[in-house]
Parts: sequence; C-alpha cells; structure tokens
Amino acid sequence: MSAMVERFGRAAAPGIARGPIHRIVDLAGLHRHAGTPAEERGALEAAIQAATEDLLLLIGAADEEGAAILEFQVAMLEDEALRAPALGAIAAGVEAGAAWSETLGEQIEDYRSSDDAYFSARAADLEDLRDRVLGHLLATGTGATVPPGAVIIGRDLTPSRFLAIDWTQGGAIALSEGSPSSHVAMLARSRGVPMAVGLGAIPENGFTEAIVDGARGRLVLDPTADDLAAYVAARADAAGQAVREAAMLTHPAMTADGVRIAVLINVAEPAELDRIDPAICDGIGLVRTEFLFSSASGLPDEMAQYTAYRRILEWAGEKPVTIRTVDAGGDKPVPGLTIDGESNPFLGTRGIRLSLAKPEIFKVQLRALARAAQHGNLKIMLPMITIPEEIDEAAALLDEAVVELAREGIAASRPPLGIMVEVPAVAIVPERFSAAAFFSIGSNDLTQYTTASARDIAAVAGLNDPGHPAVIELIRNTVQTGRELGIDVSLCGDMGGDPRHLPSLIVAGLRAVSVAPPLVGRVKLALSEIHAGVPA
Amino acid sequence: MSAMVERFGRAAAPGIARGPIHRIVDLAGLHRHAGTPAEERGALEAAIQAATEDLLLLIGAADEEGAAILEFQVAMLEDEALRAPALGAIAAGVEAGAAWSETLGEQIEDYRSSDDAYFSARAADLEDLRDRVLGHLLATGTGATVPPGAVIIGRDLTPSRFLAIDWTQGGAIALSEGSPSSHVAMLARSRGVPMAVGLGAIPENGFTEAIVDGARGRLVLDPTADDLAAYVAARADAAGQAVREAAMLTHPAMTADGVRIAVLINVAEPAELDRIDPAICDGIGLVRTEFLFSSASGLPDEMAQYTAYRRILEWAGEKPVTIRTVDAGGDKPVPGLTIDGESNPFLGTRGIRLSLAKPEIFKVQLRALARAAQHGNLKIMLPMITIPEEIDEAAALLDEAVVELAREGIAASRPPLGIMVEVPAVAIVPERFSAAAFFSIGSNDLTQYTTASARDIAAVAGLNDPGHPAVIELIRNTVQTGRELGIDVSLCGDMGGDPRHLPSLIVAGLRAVSVAPPLVGRVKLALSEIHAGVPA
Repeated sequence: MSAMVERFGRAAAPGIARGPIHRIVDLAGLHRHAGTPAEERGALEAAIQAATEDLLLLIGAADEEGAAILEFQVAMLEDEALRAPALGAIAAGVEAGAAWSETLGEQIEDYRSSDDAYFSARAADLEDLRDRVLGHLLATGTGATVPPGAVIIGRDLTPSRFLAIDWTQGGAIALSEGSPSSHVAMLARSRGVPMAVGLGAIPENGFTEAIVDGARGRLVLDPTADDLAAYVAARADAAGQAVREAAMLTHPAMTADGVRIAVLINVAEPAELDRIDPAICDGIGLVRTEFLFSSASGLPDEMAQYTAYRRILEWAGEKPVTIRTVDAGGDKPVPGLTIDGESNPFLGTRGIRLSLAKPEIFKVQLRALARAAQHGNLKIMLPMITIPEEIDEAAALLDEAVVELAREGIAASRPPLGIMVEVPAVAIVPERFSAAAFFSIGSNDLTQYTTASARDIAAVAGLNDPGHPAVIELIRNTVQTGRELGIDVSLCGDMGGDPRHLPSLIVAGLRAVSVAPPLVGRVKLALSEIHAGVPA
Repeated sequence: MSAMVERFGRAAAPGIARGPIHRIVDLAGLHRHAGTPAEERGALEAAIQAATEDLLLLIGAADEEGAAILEFQVAMLEDEALRAPALGAIAAGVEAGAAWSETLGEQIEDYRSSDDAYFSARAADLEDLRDRVLGHLLATGTGATVPPGAVIIGRDLTPSRFLAIDWTQGGAIALSEGSPSSHVAMLARSRGVPMAVGLGAIPENGFTEAIVDGARGRLVLDPTADDLAAYVAARADAAGQAVREAAMLTHPAMTADGVRIAVLINVAEPAELDRIDPAICDGIGLVRTEFLFSSASGLPDEMAQYTAYRRILEWAGEKPVTIRTVDAGGDKPVPGLTIDGESNPFLGTRGIRLSLAKPEIFKVQLRALARAAQHGNLKIMLPMITIPEEIDEAAALLDEAVVELAREGIAASRPPLGIMVEVPAVAIVPERFSAAAFFSIGSNDLTQYTTASARDIAAVAGLNDPGHPAVIELIRNTVQTGRELGIDVSLCGDMGGDPRHLPSLIVAGLRAVSVAPPLVGRVKLALSEIHAGVPA
C-alpha cells in the first residue's frame, strides 16, 4: 500500500465523505483517451450501432415526412463508405472520437460548400449523425460503472456524467482542474455531494481509498489512522450543525430584526421532490427544465413535458412554482438543439436566444407549460434575456400557444412571464424590462459576465467573485428598480445559499432567495443572525 | 464563364473594391483541409524542420540555462519515436495538424499525470513543441500566395492571416461566416479594406472576379456591365466623401456648438505611421502591442520592444502616446504565452490576467516601456482590469522595473499607469479604480460582456450592440465618475469611429475618442454636425 498523500485545492461543495476511489477517463470532446486500435474500432462500431437504433426508434414515433428523413440518415449511417476513413485512422492509432469527427467533418465541409441546395442541406444530416455517434462514444460506460459511495477522481466532470452517477449512498468528487462556479459544482452543492477542485496532478497508482473534505478543498488518498479519526470527528461536527439547521427547516425565515425573507427551492428534476417536505419552503423559485432535454431518445414531446410540470405543481400545492424555459447552450449542450463549436459558448446561442431561434421546439414547451398552469400557481421564467424585444417575442409565442390550445379544446391558462436577470445589460437598466412579470437574479451568470470570468475556468476563479462590489451594485439596482416598478425580485443563484453573501444581499434590499434544497436549513439559520437594518 | 452571382451578408468594413478572386483554405485549428497522405507527411516533416530551425536560432540568443532547455527540446523534436504515431495516422488519411495534435496530446497527458515532478514538467516542453510545429503547419503558404489587390473569399479569416496579406494595392474580404465585431473586421476597418461577412455559402467554381461593397455587406461574383458601371459610380461617390473628410483632417475636432473633442488614433503596428501626418490627430490613444508578440521567432526581447516603442513616441513628438501592455488571449493566441483550450477564451486568461500570471514576460515589456518613456509623452494602459488589486500588482512590477533600470544605469522613467474600462465590473463602480491615472473605455469588449454576446459569433451579432442603453449607461457612468475624480476618460473602441454612435457618446459627456487612422476625417466631419448640448 502506498503512503498517505494529501492535496489541497479549492472548495466546490461542502461536506466530508470517505469511499473507494473511482477514476474517470476524460470524455470532454477530443480529450477522450484512446484504447488499443481494436478497442477503438469496437467502440466506434458500437456507437454507430447504438445511433442507428436511436434513429429506428425515432422513425417509429415520427410522421411520414420525418420518417423519410430519418430513414435517409439510417441509410447514410449504414453505408460502409462513410465510416471507412475513420476506421483507417483508428487502425493507425487515432482515438475513435477524433477519427469519427475528422472523417465526418471533411464530408460536412464538402457538402456545405456545394452550390447545389440539396447537397448543402445534407451537411446538416451529417452533423446530426456525427453528434449522435459521438454522444454514444463519449457516454460509453460512464455512469453505470461507478460503484455507489465512491470518491470520483478525474480532470473534470461534465454535468451529464454527474447526473448519470448514483449519489444516494454518498460519495464525493475530487478534480485536478474544474471550478467552484461550474455547473457540476452547482449540482454537487444541490445534491449535498462533497467536492474539491483545482487539486493539480493527482497521483494515479496504488491508492484505493480517499477522503474528500469539500469545505476545505482537501483530498486525502489512503488516509492514516489519524486522518480517519479526524474524519469521524468532522462528521460529528457536521451532524451537530445539521441538527441546528434542521430545527429551522419548517419555520418561516426571519432576520434577527424580524424581517420576513421568502426562502424557495431550486429543483433540477422532479424526482428530487420525493424526499422533500413542501413545508420547508415558500415555493419553488427555479425549476431547471434541462433534465427533460438530456434524454438519449431525443427532444421531449408536449405530453412528457406537461406530465413532468404537472407533477411539480401538484407537489407545491398553492405555493408558487417558477419554471424556467430550457436554458440549453453555454456549458449545457443538447443534441438536436444547441450549436456545436461556438468559440465562446457562454457568450453564444444559449437560453432564450436558442429558444427563439427554434420556435417550433420552444412552442412545444410553452404549450406544455400553459396546460400545466391549470394545476397550480405557475410562473414562467425566460433565461438569458438581453433586450426587451426577446420578452415580447416569447410572450407572443406563449399567447399563440394558449390560443391554439383553446381552439383545440385543451384546458390551459396563460401564466405570468418573468425573466432571469443574469446578463449585465438587464441589471444595468432593469427599467427597460418592465414587461417582465418578475425578476429573478441569476447571480452565477451575472457574476461571470460582470467580471468577464468564466465559471468553469479555474485560472480565473479568483476573479469570478459574486462579492465584487459591481455585482452587489447590480443586484441593489435591480431590487430597487423592481420595488419602484412593483415588480417582484428574487435571486436564484448560488450566492443566495451562501451564508457569507447573505448579509450583503439582505442589506441590498433582497427579500426572496431560492436555493438548493439541502441548503434551506443553513440559509434560514444564517438569515436569523442577520440585521436587515432600515425597514425596506 | 458563369453568370453573375450576388450575395448579401453583413457590413464589416466600409468601402468598395473590385479584384480577382483568391480563395483561402480554412486554417483555424482542426479545420485545416487535408491534402493527400504524401502531401500531409511532407507538410508535417517541413513544419518539424522549421520548428527545429526556430529553436536553433533561439539557442544562439539564449543564456546557458535557456540553451540547455532548448537543446533538450531540439533532441525531443528530432526523435523519430515522437513523430511516428502522427505519421501513422497521416498514412491512414488523417490531416497533418490533427495527427500531430493528437499524438502530442496523448504524450502530454501521460507526462502531466506523472507523480514525478521532473516528468510532469516535461508536459510543458511538449506543449511548446506541439504549438510551435502546429504554428508552422497552419502558416504554410498563407500570406505570400495572395496576389495584391485580390478579393479574399473564405469561411473566416484570422487576424494573423490578415496581417500577412499585402493590402497596399487594394483588395477586399468576403466571408461566408465571420462577424462585424471580430478582431479581423476591426483590422479591416483600420486599414480601410472593404469587408462583408455572414454571406452564407459562396459558390466555388468558375468565377474569376468579384466586387465587395463593404458598407452594404454585398458580394458580386463575375459582375455584369451594369454592376461595373455602378461600381465606378460608387467609387466616385466615395471619392467625393473622401474629399469632404480630407478637408477636416488637420483641423482640431469641434462639435457644431463649439465643444472641442480630442481625436486620437489607434495603431496596430509602427509601420502604419509612415503614411500618417501627426498633424491629423491629438495623439495616439491606443498602441496595440500584440504585433510584437506574433513573430514566429518567439517572444520579443527588451531591446526589440524598446526600439518599436521609441519609434512610435518619436513619431508623435510631444503628443501623448498610450501604449497598451500585451492583450493576448481571448481571440489573440500567442505561442508560448497564452493558454490553449480554454472553454470560453473571452472569459478566460487574457490581457492583464495573463501578464500577471507570467510576470517574467510582463517585466520585459514594462522595462522596455520605462526606457522608451524617455523619448516622448508616454502613458501605459492595462487591458482587462477587473479588480483594483490588478492595478496595484502591475504598478509594483513597473516600480520594480524602474528601480532595476536605475540600478543598472539605464535611462528610464516611470510613466502614468491607466486602465482599459472594458470589463463591466469596472464601468459599474469606476470609483473603486481611482488608482488608475486614466480610463480608456474599450467599447468592443464592454459591449460583448455587457450583452453576453461574443463579438465573433455571427448568430448573436444582433445582440452585440454598442447602442444598447446599458452600454451607453456604463459609458455615461464612467465619464461622470472620471470627471468627479479628476481622471481623464477617452474611448478607443469601434464605437468612437462610427458616426451613428458619436451623438450618444458626446451627449454622455465623452470628450476624447481614439479611432483607426482612416476614420479620422469621417469622425471629425461627423462631430462637426453634433450638438454637445449643455456645456460639460
């Protein structure tokens, strides 16, 4: 057995956990590690086969025109000539994903540059095939092989891989790169999975067990008896804190000077709610709908969406539920929806930009939401709003959906339409966005844009600081303008769940936060120690 | 001969030009087109040879320790085992750049994950070799083969390729993708090269001549007699406008109601100044120093930098010259300096972030600047400032450089240190940055971050609008705060050269703009028609 090894990085999600080590290979884009040529060839053939099966399933559910297009794609995929150059490159030692991308990339370029409209349109079919096969290649044996309760060690972790892992029996994450502001860190905080990032090179060989102390950003490989004793003591401390937090859970949140603060919860998928008592919160401040769009079987239809939304509304009873329209793009790619290869995806076609660019997909979501609105107190929220015209366009599509549903005799209503305040342009002049029914400050993206520091680049993590006076000033400006205009303002970013930032938010006038469910007790406890000062 | 074909896209740089068509292959990263395996093998061997020659040249100029490191790199590069997997992939049809990247990438990963500090440090050597060879591969036959006066047609164009082309005899650019906010569009406006972008698929075959009308975003392939007549008329109109603008050139700029506005020029490399009369401007508001860092022979030494800065200062005489420290990163990679593969480079390690991360490189530039300050009215400007501490750190390094030079008996002085206001965090609370000697608003980046819309992603070009009320409000806030604190404020982004935006800038209180030299006449003419209103 090797000697104990310790690494310090950055805290990404609090908590301390111990478990067997599970190393993950790096699946990000071209960084997938190559196996032997035989393994790579097998991986590519299997991915092509899986993609073909996807398409056959889709054909079963498609209309005549759709089926014809998909059958054409199946024929292309089954054509040996398509894959031949990729297999040649694999035989020469190239990784399967790179070989497939390169092969398809060249053909896509050839088609795209054709003068003939028919041929240039085929480029899109090939891109679809490229991405569908790559998706299977990259997903090979990701979640299923992780033993429950393991400490995941790797360079970085994508949100989709995080979601594929079973966390119900504990576990933790330790990354050599990564950032506390990444979406995967957000998910880890939300699920209570301890996580440390930026640990630098983590030795590979001979270690079997690890402890991760998320709050300290600490990783211990093969802990000593002393480490294990300290681990037990830390768990006991955490348990004591948990008892104090739990005592606050079902009480309304109040500051030390008696100002009532609404505490709502963020929900990433409906199954989370099974374990939560609605009495702990004042409603759901954010439902992320990306979970519906990450299925291998393609984009969700209206019924699948309606069913999911209705379930959430029924859980909440009369309490408000704010559902955000799909916030794909950025670091949340969705096959068939988002745009690959943008130079700076966080500054690209994401959120409402993508929805308005694909109104046929957006409309399905709006119809499902209007139908679900019959079953509770629903509000719809638009992500990445930058100019007022985007609200107008979305409102027109929502109105259309409601009219269509009425014409079809389907029960529906028109929920209020509010916006995320996460692009600085909105927080600087919120008075221009008075068409919104409410403002919800997205502090993670607001911080990333205001400080021009990506939340997933470790080297600028120090600049990506929600406590920057400029971020606080934008929040203050949004809260004050909202109050003047009679528009409700809440905040649904990580800042709202962080006891270090709560005092400045309350002093800035904020009276509603929406946080990850495991943080509700901690937030209520922290709020009870804050003085709001002059009555708001 | 084919029939005339017309395409409309977006305006990127005004002007109209006619010339023979020159198509460029796409060199961006993995998009380099593959030749035959034999050609690719030859290209890789030649690039490795050229990289080896680079290193031998550098060894001649290095000290003992540096020479040892470089000799080690040469030995690695000459090792046949290093290139073998790449040659194998090429034989199987993979493009040389992809094959080389993939081969080196795997070895870099292996080294990096080593427990041994010696081996993990070798990863950096391999990265250096990877990039040096790739640089040669991508540069193969780029600028030299473009005939003077040609209309360049392609998917997109990198700034470095633009700079490698001889524009002295006219020419124009027509891109199927690209954006008016890209750096290459900025360069085109600065050099007066007509440019249209976002033209979509451009037919490939059988065309020999083209007209580009940059202001209308129009491309005509194989123009008809009517097109040619219209072209001649448009050139005549442009000539008339040019005469009116030229008449303003050497007069100080004044608004219609007699408010004096300082008009300075932006300079991308010293050779531009040879064709410019200093009498047309109030100084140089921005010298971009990236030109010094784009040489194939590596990073510039102190003497090379000092010589270049001195030449610019001597051109300006007593007029102020603001030199910006190197703004690499983002879309301006510099081998040996910037970080590859960041997920969102515009939100990553660029500008001052990179300089402070590599103080040994930054110090060389600060020493050269302090020495050049002896020869004119020099100010130093820091790009991408986000927090006040960055100014303090840069100031400390500058002070150190000045002390060192004094100790070495080398004449130098300590120029004032100001900042770019381009990260929203600064424009929102400029009062926190009062350590800066001056503010220069970088409207291009300020717009891109404020609207969360990358300047080089065509799909969000509509949102990337410097006229967004939030951008104007940040400019107004910066100007007003600067006035209250006694800090000079100017603007050096494209907005300052655009007659559509000048009225709102002047009304916001701005009294100094720095623009591309060919725009000075146009800006002075436009200013003469604006009413500044209440005295500032």
